[in-house]
Amino acid sequence: MGEKFVSERNLKFMIYEVFDATSLLQYPYYADHSEEMFNIILDAAMKMAKSTLKPCFVDMDKKPPEFVDGKIKVHPMVRTVLQQFGEGGWISAAASMEHGGQQLPQLINMVTNFIFSAANYSASIFPSLCTGAAHLITSFGSQKLIDTYVPKMYAGQWQGTMALTEPQAGSSLADITTVAEPIGDGVYKIKGQKIFISASDHDSADNIINLLLAKIKGAPAGVRGISLFVVPKKRLDERGNLVDNDISITAMYHKMGYKGTPLNQLSLGENDNCYGYLVGEPHNGLSYMFQMMNEFRISIGACAAAIASAAYYEALDYTKERRQGRGLSNKDPHSPQVPIIDHADIKRMLMFARAIMEGSFSLLCQCAKYADLGIVENGEEKERNELLLGLLTPVAKTYPSEMAIQAISATLQCMGGYGYCDEFQMEQHYRDARIHPIHEGTTGIHGITLLGRNITSGNGKAFQYYLEEVKKTIASAREIEALKPYAGALENALEKLQKVTSHLVDLNSQKKRELFLADATLYLELFGVIAVAWQWLLQAIVSSKALQASSSGTDINFYTGKVFTCRYFFAYELPKTEGFAIRLLNSDGLTVAMEEKYFDD
Amino acid sequence: MGEKFVSERNLKFMIYEVFDATSLLQYPYYADHSEEMFNIILDAAMKMAKSTLKPCFVDMDKKPPEFVDGKIKVHPMVRTVLQQFGEGGWISAAASMEHGGQQLPQLINMVTNFIFSAANYSASIFPSLCTGAAHLITSFGSQKLIDTYVPKMYAGQWQGTMALTEPQAGSSLADITTVAEPIGDGVYKIKGQKIFISASDHDSADNIINLLLAKIKGAPAGVRGISLFVVPKKRLDERGNLVDNDISITAMYHKMGYKGTPLNQLSLGENDNCYGYLVGEPHNGLSYMFQMMNEFRISIGACAAAIASAAYYEALDYTKERRQGRGLSNKDPHSPQVPIIDHADIKRMLMFARAIMEGSFSLLCQCAKYADLGIVENGEEKERNELLLGLLTPVAKTYPSEMAIQAISATLQCMGGYGYCDEFQMEQHYRDARIHPIHEGTTGIHGITLLGRNITSGNGKAFQYYLEEVKKTIASAREIEALKPYAGALENALEKLQKVTSHLVDLNSQKKRELFLADATLYLELFGVIAVAWQWLLQAIVSSKALQASSSGTDINFYTGKVFTCRYFFAYELPKTEGFAIRLLNSDGLTVAMEEKYFDD
Repeated sequence: MGEKFVSERNLKFMIYEVFDATSLLQYPYYADHSEEMFNIILDAAMKMAKSTLKPCFVDMDKKPPEFVDGKIKVHPMVRTVLQQFGEGGWISAAASMEHGGQQLPQLINMVTNFIFSAANYSASIFPSLCTGAAHLITSFGSQKLIDTYVPKMYAGQWQGTMALTEPQAGSSLADITTVAEPIGDGVYKIKGQKIFISASDHDSADNIINLLLAKIKGAPAGVRGISLFVVPKKRLDERGNLVDNDISITAMYHKMGYKGTPLNQLSLGENDNCYGYLVGEPHNGLSYMFQMMNEFRISIGACAAAIASAAYYEALDYTKERRQGRGLSNKDPHSPQVPIIDHADIKRMLMFARAIMEGSFSLLCQCAKYADLGIVENGEEKERNELLLGLLTPVAKTYPSEMAIQAISATLQCMGGYGYCDEFQMEQHYRDARIHPIHEGTTGIHGITLLGRNITSGNGKAFQYYLEEVKKTIASAREIEALKPYAGALENALEKLQKVTSHLVDLNSQKKRELFLADATLYLELFGVIAVAWQWLLQAIVSSKALQASSSGTDINFYTGKVFTCRYFFAYELPKTEGFAIRLLNSDGLTVAMEEKYFDD
Repeated sequence: MGEKFVSERNLKFMIYEVFDATSLLQYPYYADHSEEMFNIILDAAMKMAKSTLKPCFVDMDKKPPEFVDGKIKVHPMVRTVLQQFGEGGWISAAASMEHGGQQLPQLINMVTNFIFSAANYSASIFPSLCTGAAHLITSFGSQKLIDTYVPKMYAGQWQGTMALTEPQAGSSLADITTVAEPIGDGVYKIKGQKIFISASDHDSADNIINLLLAKIKGAPAGVRGISLFVVPKKRLDERGNLVDNDISITAMYHKMGYKGTPLNQLSLGENDNCYGYLVGEPHNGLSYMFQMMNEFRISIGACAAAIASAAYYEALDYTKERRQGRGLSNKDPHSPQVPIIDHADIKRMLMFARAIMEGSFSLLCQCAKYADLGIVENGEEKERNELLLGLLTPVAKTYPSEMAIQAISATLQCMGGYGYCDEFQMEQHYRDARIHPIHEGTTGIHGITLLGRNITSGNGKAFQYYLEEVKKTIASAREIEALKPYAGALENALEKLQKVTSHLVDLNSQKKRELFLADATLYLELFGVIAVAWQWLLQAIVSSKALQASSSGTDINFYTGKVFTCRYFFAYELPKTEGFAIRLLNSDGLTVAMEEKYFDD
């Protein structure tokens, strides 16, 4: 079996042909880079993914972390991974040069992360957490905090984490009870419990740096009383020695997938000797943390699409080799069996997986581009890019997360019984991918974020920007004869989205908040299908133009495949919006009216 | 946490109130039974499920079969299970009295199997395979074969299997190459390989009786050359001693779920000493095997719905206990958090799971009733019931199988991170359920069976009967004011189904067979949604009438819950038919035209 997990051709198509990464080089912030440099970075990422990450993909699943004597032992390759990521500058790649980074555009950085998580999702999380946690410190922490922690985290020596969830506070962060008591000079004594914290202890890093939410004693109730702290596993004492910081691991979870990364329960300050260092202003922690959460949400979307990519190429390989059955019109039992990729139903499943995976990836590249422009643009353009990124973040997190599960289920189905057995990697992909609709905000939470906050805030300005963006693409598609029907279909779908949105926003104006948000998850799904249809139309425009120009050889196949997959999305996925719209325009309050007692006998 | 895995109230609702099991007692074949007897049987099944099956559910997953020294060692509880099933008469319950059974209606038998697989799917498969294999022998085998094998299989001492798949022949049974060479007197020497054979060796049965497909030397190519054999692991020699029959286990598969049951690869006749005993006529084996396959298809549908039932009750329990967040209009962070079942999105997911699970179960009961009437009716009525059962079998297998995966994904989502960890049973349900769209015919195969065979054969007679059945229900619903809109919605959906069907059948008449069947899987999905909507309307009729009469106490909650869930299905699931219809009426041949080379870079 082949070991392909991403299409490098597709990555470059997205980066250069669809999203024109070189246009970023005109901005001084990115001017030290070049297309050649981007390619070297992509090659290096592929090389590390193939030589370091992919070879231990299965083994990290078969030999998950162990919890022995209060300590977490992870797969020995984790130390190698962290070292290589640190030495290669991957952890700090997108950070500003001021903080030791390379100011790599997110468009490139997101793609390298896609490569890493397609090769080995669990392994990729360790460095990825270092990046996000360090970025929080550089963005909001004091110089002292930056100097103390960030270089070691960028070097892959110290592990970063994000410590939010508590036994009584998962989706509802307002209810955290971990307490921080000031002892002066920005230092606090921390006491509390955290659960489901990824990589919050292991033996492949020399220290663990938890970016942790807690409430300063006497703080206001709810989200306005939450502060952010650096709470290391080992703190530096006055002499600069690392000493134990009174954090104990009280449990390790046993997960269905994503097994390479330990997920732990922490108890902080059991001996009243756990120090935390305030990041930024008191009571402002949740808004800081949202930076890391939002970055991670895009990242999770990319990881989900990446796992689907690995699954797609495994199934593609299998379906070309595996012979079974004959054409529907062939009644001759003596004729040889055909590769199953010849069967329409197998092609349908592969096209579904690819349409989801590459469509999601395109949406993620789109978000990365908005992020990159948000950094370097000014005034209204800056706001526009930031609002678009903010609006699309819940979509770019959940659409890939939810749909990758279905895509991988389809690729598993292509492999029949073999897909269900661990002689192949498919079943691991299936297990790994199921985490994504849960962590970094469940799908339900993101539905409420999209509809209840992003759509309505600022008088719907972000949504207006979004409609403009999609309409621009529709107009471009209209200029290509073959794409006119798809331009029309997307326009209709967009009108449906506007109609549904107005209907729901009206309910909100009438203070029917329960009704307004009852089907927010479905609204998110509707929004996602249309957003990805938009991304497919973008890709089809580029591909059609390339075919009209003078493509040759494998490029013709590539672009033709793109156009086919776009057509697939419009033929099979976009029609699903009909059903969603019917439901969303109904608002009969069925799920609001349902009562607990009716669920029982 | 509670340990509820089925609702006994719902089982009795379906058996007595919706499908009127007592009406079967009028037929002499079932006359020895009574409602009281049925209830005793249901109680006994619940008792065994609770005391024997459920307690080892997790342990059988954690301690899967081992393959050591060419032998398969299963969980020690498997022997107990087989013994209890044998002694309790469960394996032979539905068999005719002539063959030592109780002539229990399938409507009751299917429900007890539902109970068993909800408690422990893997464990339930061992006796279930004995039932199907023995029924093949009693239906088509000689008296000698019956006398030799069936009593031991009904006693749970000898394990039955169905041995079809070969390395090169899974979905395409025409291509099996296992050879049978006659040595006289109905005895053949068997040589070949079988793969993915459930329970085809283990240490908890004294013998393994494989019902195996092979080709007699010189047989015609294709499906018309397939014969059926009994091929035991140990055969009886002339003196009546059990001697080794030259079958070796060459591999055991490691599955993602369904772990309690071993799935093996067999090599038969390596030493030219494997005997097989012909069942029925030569070359007629596939049509015999279809009896077991069709029985098993209904059974697989029931198992899928049963796993969803266990998942639903686990999530229901959790969501009532788990407190998180507050009502959307409650801004007071000091107020206590609410149980998450209060949130509309959680209720939506629970209702989805229940609508799928109980709707599927209803369709399965409907099929069981057709099977029961097919046995006892005569003439046109017999044909009608048999045709309806045949038509619906692929639907009753695949709708529950495919949708249970989504239902369980929703119940897992209700539990957040806990659903993903093995501290709960949910993740096991999720893994176990994924097998069902694969075994006993993949979903794609059933799509082709439904559209390519069942709909078209006999001039569409089966489909006409089906339309009559659904229309009868629509007419009944119209008599209840509150159900009129649902009657109308189902009528519209049925018209859509007819329109789509005509369109596709026309393509077939035009000999466009590839186009005709390209989206057969989607047709199956469309058909399934409408069939289950029909079943929900049936349930809503009964429940509405009960509410109009004088229900009280918990019964009011039960019937109200039923009506709510019916409304859910019509509001959220039935609209999906819009998208399917758009696609199915399109027939642009997209997946037919797609070529292998376009899948690559």
